[in-house]
Amino acid sequence: MPAFYAALHPYLTSSGIMFFLCCIPYPPYHLPCPPAPHAYRKFIMTINHTVRLINRPIGEPKRSDFAFADEQLPALLEGQMLVKNLYLSLDPAMRGWMNEGKSYIEPVKLGDVMRAGGISEVIESNNGRFQVGDNISGMANVQTYVVTDGKGWVKVDPALAPLTTYLNVLGMTGMTGYFGLLESGQPKSGETVVVSGAAGAVGATVGQVAKIKGCRVVGIAGGAEKCKLAVEKYGYDACIDYKNEDVRVGLKRECPNGIDVYFDNVGGEILDIVLTRINLRARIVICGAISQYNNTTPVKGPSNYLSLLVNRARMEGIVVFDYAPKYKEGAAAMAEWIRDGKMVSVEHVETGIDRFPEVLMKLFKGENFGKLVLKVG
Amino acid sequence: MPAFYAALHPYLTSSGIMFFLCCIPYPPYHLPCPPAPHAYRKFIMTINHTVRLINRPIGEPKRSDFAFADEQLPALLEGQMLVKNLYLSLDPAMRGWMNEGKSYIEPVKLGDVMRAGGISEVIESNNGRFQVGDNISGMANVQTYVVTDGKGWVKVDPALAPLTTYLNVLGMTGMTGYFGLLESGQPKSGETVVVSGAAGAVGATVGQVAKIKGCRVVGIAGGAEKCKLAVEKYGYDACIDYKNEDVRVGLKRECPNGIDVYFDNVGGEILDIVLTRINLRARIVICGAISQYNNTTPVKGPSNYLSLLVNRARMEGIVVFDYAPKYKEGAAAMAEWIRDGKMVSVEHVETGIDRFPEVLMKLFKGENFGKLVLKVG
Repeated sequence: MPAFYAALHPYLTSSGIMFFLCCIPYPPYHLPCPPAPHAYRKFIMTINHTVRLINRPIGEPKRSDFAFADEQLPALLEGQMLVKNLYLSLDPAMRGWMNEGKSYIEPVKLGDVMRAGGISEVIESNNGRFQVGDNISGMANVQTYVVTDGKGWVKVDPALAPLTTYLNVLGMTGMTGYFGLLESGQPKSGETVVVSGAAGAVGATVGQVAKIKGCRVVGIAGGAEKCKLAVEKYGYDACIDYKNEDVRVGLKRECPNGIDVYFDNVGGEILDIVLTRINLRARIVICGAISQYNNTTPVKGPSNYLSLLVNRARMEGIVVFDYAPKYKEGAAAMAEWIRDGKMVSVEHVETGIDRFPEVLMKLFKGENFGKLVLKVG
Repeated sequence: MPAFYAALHPYLTSSGIMFFLCCIPYPPYHLPCPPAPHAYRKFIMTINHTVRLINRPIGEPKRSDFAFADEQLPALLEGQMLVKNLYLSLDPAMRGWMNEGKSYIEPVKLGDVMRAGGISEVIESNNGRFQVGDNISGMANVQTYVVTDGKGWVKVDPALAPLTTYLNVLGMTGMTGYFGLLESGQPKSGETVVVSGAAGAVGATVGQVAKIKGCRVVGIAGGAEKCKLAVEKYGYDACIDYKNEDVRVGLKRECPNGIDVYFDNVGGEILDIVLTRINLRARIVICGAISQYNNTTPVKGPSNYLSLLVNRARMEGIVVFDYAPKYKEGAAAMAEWIRDGKMVSVEHVETGIDRFPEVLMKLFKGENFGKLVLKVG
């Protein structure tokens, strides 16, 4: 027969500290309290575990660049809601946000909670747009809870797709690949599209969309396992394993008609090699340069950029936010492809907000298979 | 009273060597023969002085990379004409044509007459399209005469503009600047356009067209004299003398609203600096990279190319030939501006086909003021 012990738990109310008598069964001793009265529940929830940026990393981000703390969240004001973060999106772009200086988005300020998109659940709501229990997507940041007025958050439907899909194909990642490829890359049926970081989050979307649009799609990825993923899961026609083959040789073999669109997620040497094989009026989409983000020396510029001149080709940078007015259109198209089995959304889920720095590094070490997601846990 | 002496001049005919008795007045002794019979005249003219590429230059082209010879031209076939070259266009692009390997145009083959555009005069014609005395523009190459079927040659009108203008604003140079700026750069009134090689041939056109289109136009050029030319002659709002000022400082001062269009003729360090100051959705037109053409080390790629990403900007290469169907439109527009005094065409004319290698080097040393033209002489 289970026995119980009683405990007094302190909680904050507007009039001061109160106590809640909690009866806990034992053994075991680690079971949670039974459902608590409203005020107590609020207190428990408003302990927010945060990961704050405290140093601008030099080279690879280290654990010591972040502070981990338990913090009290403020009480909700009118129009606000309390949101519990479920999944965080880990992206190469985060590395850039940690740097000082002008970019397409403000750097994360030193002392601020590290920026991250996420999928969350509404726990309490003084906001007419959102109800308790809603799953929502927005700037969750690397913490367990958010108090927000709802600006920038949108509802997602867990009945249509698993929640993590909204951080991948149906989220920013998917929008980046979809609009970056179609609007800047402008692939035409029959053209050859090359994608670096082919099995990465954005690359997987780009490869699948290019394939659906009737292109020959050739990936570049690091390692046999990733290339297998690219070909077997994402439908690439071929994938060049840059860790085990000279990319020059691979491109020559896999792109007999040259390269019309190059979607670049990695920069560096691979961009330079691709430039030697582009066709007349090729389009190079600069989405990222993960090979360069942790550089402590200057970024390697593409020595072969004059190939743009020779081929009257174009190199254009993209940032997903520019396509915000069209997100719905992109998400609708891809949701349909997923439903029809033409497209997949693969996530690599790791658990534990405390592991944020180490899990993030998986991106730069190439250790993620699919879109990297941190389950807040 | 003048006296005469008689001389026998040999000439070639289809049946062998013949002699023409020439009576020459004296003194002085250096007067030309009086009008000669047709066959003799043809012999004199068909001695073609050629400059052939015999080595692929390493670094700067040297005199020893070329062979200078007097050659017999073949007799005219039906449909052909004999053309006397008057002016040759000397361009930075020539350096690229001397290199082996794939480019936007075939390299000049070793042993071939060096490629050059030119303005010429029809001397004899078996071609219905052209009459003796016509001034024409086409691939004259570095030689005194051409035998051609007329393909690629067009008539120019010396009554409308001086002949050298057809190698400058009304020629390939002008078309490069006009269409490169308008079609790839797409400047809008009120935007800031920066032009490197501002006082160079293409730069002068770009600067003037940008100004006519209502832009703030800032040049970058080497030396006070060139900057003066850019501002006073071509109407630049300002010109940064990169030899005497940090371009970063100059751009900060002269482009307070950032840079919307950068027309690049030089590449290298200046391109990299400009990239740090471009605006959202800036357009970078890659027309050339004169700073890199004589490199014996790899071309310096733009380290700051990720500014394209941050600013969703575009870098596009252009080659003038692509605009061929529109040349007439461009030439008509600029001829009108010249007539209305809104635009000038400045040529730097040097004389003597034998000086080709040395005169060409003026481009790379920055010693030309205006479009460099070689008078065949």
